[in-house]
Amino acid sequence: MRLLTYRTGDGTRAGRLDGADVTPLDAPDVGALLAADAGWRDRAAATTGRTVPLTGLDLAPAVPRPSKIICVGLNYKRHIAETGHDTPEHPTLFAKFARALIGASDPVVLPAASTAMDWEAELAVVIGRTVTRARGAGARAAIAGYTVANDVSARDFQGRTTQWLQGKTFDSTTPLGPALVTGDEVGDAADLEITCTVGGEVMQRGRTSDMLFPPEEIVSYISGIVTLDPGDVILTGTPSGIGDSRVPPVRLRPGDLVETEIEGLGVLRNRCAG
Amino acid sequence: MRLLTYRTGDGTRAGRLDGADVTPLDAPDVGALLAADAGWRDRAAATTGRTVPLTGLDLAPAVPRPSKIICVGLNYKRHIAETGHDTPEHPTLFAKFARALIGASDPVVLPAASTAMDWEAELAVVIGRTVTRARGAGARAAIAGYTVANDVSARDFQGRTTQWLQGKTFDSTTPLGPALVTGDEVGDAADLEITCTVGGEVMQRGRTSDMLFPPEEIVSYISGIVTLDPGDVILTGTPSGIGDSRVPPVRLRPGDLVETEIEGLGVLRNRCAG
Repeated sequence: MRLLTYRTGDGTRAGRLDGADVTPLDAPDVGALLAADAGWRDRAAATTGRTVPLTGLDLAPAVPRPSKIICVGLNYKRHIAETGHDTPEHPTLFAKFARALIGASDPVVLPAASTAMDWEAELAVVIGRTVTRARGAGARAAIAGYTVANDVSARDFQGRTTQWLQGKTFDSTTPLGPALVTGDEVGDAADLEITCTVGGEVMQRGRTSDMLFPPEEIVSYISGIVTLDPGDVILTGTPSGIGDSRVPPVRLRPGDLVETEIEGLGVLRNRCAG
Repeated sequence: MRLLTYRTGDGTRAGRLDGADVTPLDAPDVGALLAADAGWRDRAAATTGRTVPLTGLDLAPAVPRPSKIICVGLNYKRHIAETGHDTPEHPTLFAKFARALIGASDPVVLPAASTAMDWEAELAVVIGRTVTRARGAGARAAIAGYTVANDVSARDFQGRTTQWLQGKTFDSTTPLGPALVTGDEVGDAADLEITCTVGGEVMQRGRTSDMLFPPEEIVSYISGIVTLDPGDVILTGTPSGIGDSRVPPVRLRPGDLVETEIEGLGVLRNRCAG
């Protein structure tokens, strides 16, 4: 099942995507749908009624207002190598805020304050139930599904201090979507192709199998620290090929089209606006 | 004006504190009060009706569910010295999540996973209006008021990776309260005494005048990166005297009473539970 959030005249609405048609659901967004009750899956699957064509819908972030967005840094082995970091023993965790999120076709707003904006294609995990100290099957069951993100980063702000947050949470920089794809439909999330192209040029092409900590292990680790809630989003790190590791570094410029795609999950197409 | 959030049989309620009496307000918590409309100050001041005694109220975090909790690290000059860090050119920013928050008298839940829990008394800024790229008077006007926090930290998890988040956001570890004190009542927030005692022993005693980046400058800096919203909370860093900088390091133990006080704002009294 594919679930998305689209903008309406007076807010947003959750919908179920079947082929090219969207069935409106009884929830303002996918996060609210997941949080409403444990039966969200059956309720969303059973909803019928008038459909609207996907074409022409204005997509919001798949989950517009997660109570947490937790990012894992340095999680693809080839990316760790390109940054020159040692292989970490534990997941490197940092946050971003919901104000950073944009929809699958929205412009990435390049902040005037930064001269070093960079791409990071990422597999996003969306949490489907409240969970603390989950292990194995419990961590698997806590995952509602997966979607595509691009953790667009201001490298200059990221490197201003030891803590990366300020380079990771500029307003309207992180596309998330187009849809949450439930786990049963994804197959093996730990073996999907992930790519990022900029202006048609392939900048990142990797597989999620290159992850040091796969999604379930990440959910388990984080839930040992903080209770995860329905609609929480975890960005699981980026493969190699970031602009910052090129010689000379490559930066995003106004007008650049960033396309972020994960096999079976969909594609984000975001034009950079200055 | 002093505004607090207390727990009721079926949730929480915002209240205005006058002396030892609390007037219930028409909002579920102080964050919702601030977010409801720009006239929150007049509305809260004008509310009349039956009062309840403060004694016996079960205080929630002053703002229980901020959309953002942003922390400033390394912001007191004597604390920077004790950690051995260089003086930073820019504020060091990291996040914590609302799941970490507790009320002014709640137990600090020491996580079983950590053996290195430590105190950090902090002045907390609460945002009163939506603000982007604020400067000077705009940053000042965006501050609804101030309250007391203790950024209780798991030093072992904080140091596991380069990013501190995982040591800063364990469930139920960060007291925030007892009340939001509006700016007009605080006087000069950049010159208040701040103390932390553990088991009656003074561990931290400093003044907010020792801050490298004072509150308004922090609001200005952060709002240049991410839009701040009503109810957002900024922890402005801790003075010297943390347990981690002692030789040998001192850790919080089950049963310890942590008292965190800021001149004119109030006191948090939290017992550590194992």
